[in-house]
Amino acid sequence: MNTPRNVKSDPSKMKTRQVRTPEDSKVSLDRLEELKKRAVFVARSCKELRERYQQSEDGLYYLITATGVVYQTFCDMTTAGGGWTLVASVHEDNIYGKCTLGDRWTSQQGNNANRPQGDGNWVNMKTFGTAEAATADDYKNPGYYDIQAEDMSVWHVPNNSPMNHWNLGAIMRYHTERRFLSLYGGNLYQLFQRYPVKYNAGAHLADNGPSIPVVYDLGNKEASKMFYGPATCGETEGGFLSFRAINAERAATAICSGVKPKGGEVDAYCVGGGGHFPQGDPNQCGDFVSFAWNGYGTHVSWSAAKEMLESAVLLFYR
Amino acid sequence: MNTPRNVKSDPSKMKTRQVRTPEDSKVSLDRLEELKKRAVFVARSCKELRERYQQSEDGLYYLITATGVVYQTFCDMTTAGGGWTLVASVHEDNIYGKCTLGDRWTSQQGNNANRPQGDGNWVNMKTFGTAEAATADDYKNPGYYDIQAEDMSVWHVPNNSPMNHWNLGAIMRYHTERRFLSLYGGNLYQLFQRYPVKYNAGAHLADNGPSIPVVYDLGNKEASKMFYGPATCGETEGGFLSFRAINAERAATAICSGVKPKGGEVDAYCVGGGGHFPQGDPNQCGDFVSFAWNGYGTHVSWSAAKEMLESAVLLFYR
Amino acid sequence: MNTPRNVKSDPSKMKTRQVRTPEDSKVSLDRLEELKKRAVFVARSCKELRERYQQSEDGLYYLITATGVVYQTFCDMTTAGGGWTLVASVHEDNIYGKCTLGDRWTSQQGNNANRPQGDGNWVNMKTFGTAEAATADDYKNPGYYDIQAEDMSVWHVPNNSPMNHWNLGAIMRYHTERRFLSLYGGNLYQLFQRYPVKYNAGAHLADNGPSIPVVYDLGNKEASKMFYGPATCGETEGGFLSFRAINAERAATAICSGVKPKGGEVDAYCVGGGGHFPQGDPNQCGDFVSFAWNGYGTHVSWSAAKEMLESAVLLFYR
Repeated sequence: MNTPRNVKSDPSKMKTRQVRTPEDSKVSLDRLEELKKRAVFVARSCKELRERYQQSEDGLYYLITATGVVYQTFCDMTTAGGGWTLVASVHEDNIYGKCTLGDRWTSQQGNNANRPQGDGNWVNMKTFGTAEAATADDYKNPGYYDIQAEDMSVWHVPNNSPMNHWNLGAIMRYHTERRFLSLYGGNLYQLFQRYPVKYNAGAHLADNGPSIPVVYDLGNKEASKMFYGPATCGETEGGFLSFRAINAERAATAICSGVKPKGGEVDAYCVGGGGHFPQGDPNQCGDFVSFAWNGYGTHVSWSAAKEMLESAVLLFYR
Repeated sequence: MNTPRNVKSDPSKMKTRQVRTPEDSKVSLDRLEELKKRAVFVARSCKELRERYQQSEDGLYYLITATGVVYQTFCDMTTAGGGWTLVASVHEDNIYGKCTLGDRWTSQQGNNANRPQGDGNWVNMKTFGTAEAATADDYKNPGYYDIQAEDMSVWHVPNNSPMNHWNLGAIMRYHTERRFLSLYGGNLYQLFQRYPVKYNAGAHLADNGPSIPVVYDLGNKEASKMFYGPATCGETEGGFLSFRAINAERAATAICSGVKPKGGEVDAYCVGGGGHFPQGDPNQCGDFVSFAWNGYGTHVSWSAAKEMLESAVLLFYR
Repeated sequence: MNTPRNVKSDPSKMKTRQVRTPEDSKVSLDRLEELKKRAVFVARSCKELRERYQQSEDGLYYLITATGVVYQTFCDMTTAGGGWTLVASVHEDNIYGKCTLGDRWTSQQGNNANRPQGDGNWVNMKTFGTAEAATADDYKNPGYYDIQAEDMSVWHVPNNSPMNHWNLGAIMRYHTERRFLSLYGGNLYQLFQRYPVKYNAGAHLADNGPSIPVVYDLGNKEASKMFYGPATCGETEGGFLSFRAINAERAATAICSGVKPKGGEVDAYCVGGGGHFPQGDPNQCGDFVSFAWNGYGTHVSWSAAKEMLESAVLLFYR
């Protein structure tokens, strides 16, 4: 089976991703002042920035929460009308570490049935990382729990890409259009209160959270499936963004990107999760769960393609 | 023995604590602008904000240190005249982890006599966490070492409570009134320079730090004692805030909240500490030390009540 | 062999380093307002602040990156014309921990040949720590990868010194003058893209990165050598700042401060590195590599002097 490919992930292009463009190194004082002036805007989301202040350039802006926390994050102001706020990224820093340091979206303290929710970051107000390092580390900002959103967008961006290369360097980008978040409290913090990401929360398939159809901005539903191991093909349907998928051993994952689960091996194609994965203890425990079950980036059997394994999953709200 | 209770910790109320109020989700632009304008105030503490700018609303404000660090934290502007600055919280993220990741107020690198001070955060300028997540993670801001204060206030707030529920959701709140901090350098950073929180700093009782009488804003001196294990009753006196209590094996703890130690088992009712606890190695090592010595939240023998175990200890200065 | 000494590291002076000066505790409102007004400056580096706004006082200022990230850091505005930006510090929090938590400049996940780059922080956009705690913890700000610089300055400052004591309390300070960074992309982020800090990147001596002559602001080339273990004397030349030195077992270190390596035991006098050090696995793994190979601060054989072991390495750009 071929590894999915598209023109944007052409290897010859990828090699240039860490080289600074001349514009970066010689940015003018005028430009810096323009960027600094963005601090005067008052908005809770990129959508509000776009509507209230007619901002249409991708990049970093300041947002404020309902309680007054001010933070900087990246706004995608161009995709499908723009107004998308980056609120989080799931980054696998060490697939050899099994629920060790850096596995903030599952557990950083081992595979442990006594901690069914693991670190619990899907449903708390902890924040970590920075927007600029969203492809080099896990990221979660106050918008994750503060913004009242309707739709989500997801980008898979090669690790360590600088921000101005994210859009063109991504290997997959898509968004939802059905305002599904309105039904689940307006953001992931609320959605996961209703669908707790924890071990033994229910049975696979029967108790999974929602699966939402997506529209592709880069890639397509077949490519989505093919990023995951060939063995998963029989139990996934492309073209969806899915939440709280449970595996056959009652372990919970958080997000299945690009696919809808139709079986019990969700650990091979969903990211994030609770703090206990019984099968092959502790080998399924970690932010990218069991994406390397049959070898690192081999794209054999249950192992995901190397591009997928080495890309961060960026989560946006609108 | 009964677990202490009061109207504020009624279980039926607790269940609603993570549900956002409509005000939160539909905050007006005027309100956001008002919150943002707080950035113009220049003050080193909430007390100064109250006195200089007549601010009387609880919530997030900006402070500045003597060297110019600007940070946001929570001000309690109502208790006993207001002007209390949140400077830190001690949060137990995993009572099963014994001086593992997240035990910033003892040691995150194991129970080790070679590191008598452990991580040393009681006496350094490291900061971590955020005000909004003070009930979901350890928190320490620059005010901890920068503010010149006289008194302290302590709140025990159930884990993961959002900020606007802290006051009403707390299980215990009290403050000192005798300006004791003036005698110890004006803050905990200075106090603990004089009373190092480290293994083998002295003998129990003989070398303990000060115990300061407190005035209760919620709860009372009997309730304070009863949050801890029944076995501790013989060696505690309610109605105090105590510092650097040493146990029978020469391990140091940092803060005994609501009680004065009168024996050598301080690990059962004091939080934080150095990097080595000899007894039952490593089972006493951790931010909530041996609060689960006789089972998780059992309130049997040396084990604290579940409410205490699952609440963060918020520290304020005035 | 004598441990290097100079008047600035006189022990009687060191003892006072954590005592706040009266100026700190009673800073005026005017002074706070002056510090706060620094937020209006628009500059990417301390050099620009000095040139554009005639700022000549050492201390904290705000900088902005090419993409608009605003951050605070320390500017040295006095040494050799001033304009030096603090961008990072390498701090050894636990020499007993071998690539454990806190070893951000090597690996926080053990000594592991599967992770040749370790945590990879020399070549990514992750940031951590704060300027005020640069002597209490590892520090890396956006300037590390954003600033286009020509020269570097390095200060070795005793752990836990407050910022206003750094300059006088340092045990060694020096800077380069030959604009060497222009040849390597303008900063360490770019330099280390060309000289990856990873296991098995090449052979010792043959594949080392550049060594740049330095001018001393405190200390001298003989003192530089003598901070390291006596056994290293035969293979170091004082008066240099060196990069990506490789040891005899093909492990890479990042920075040799004050010396040029002329042999294969670079782990005894260089800091930072990749994720795998084969010799004595895991005893060479850590931010200060094998500085305590023959005992903690003994200054015997390969062990560095206690002053060096207990000082943070502060890195500046200009």
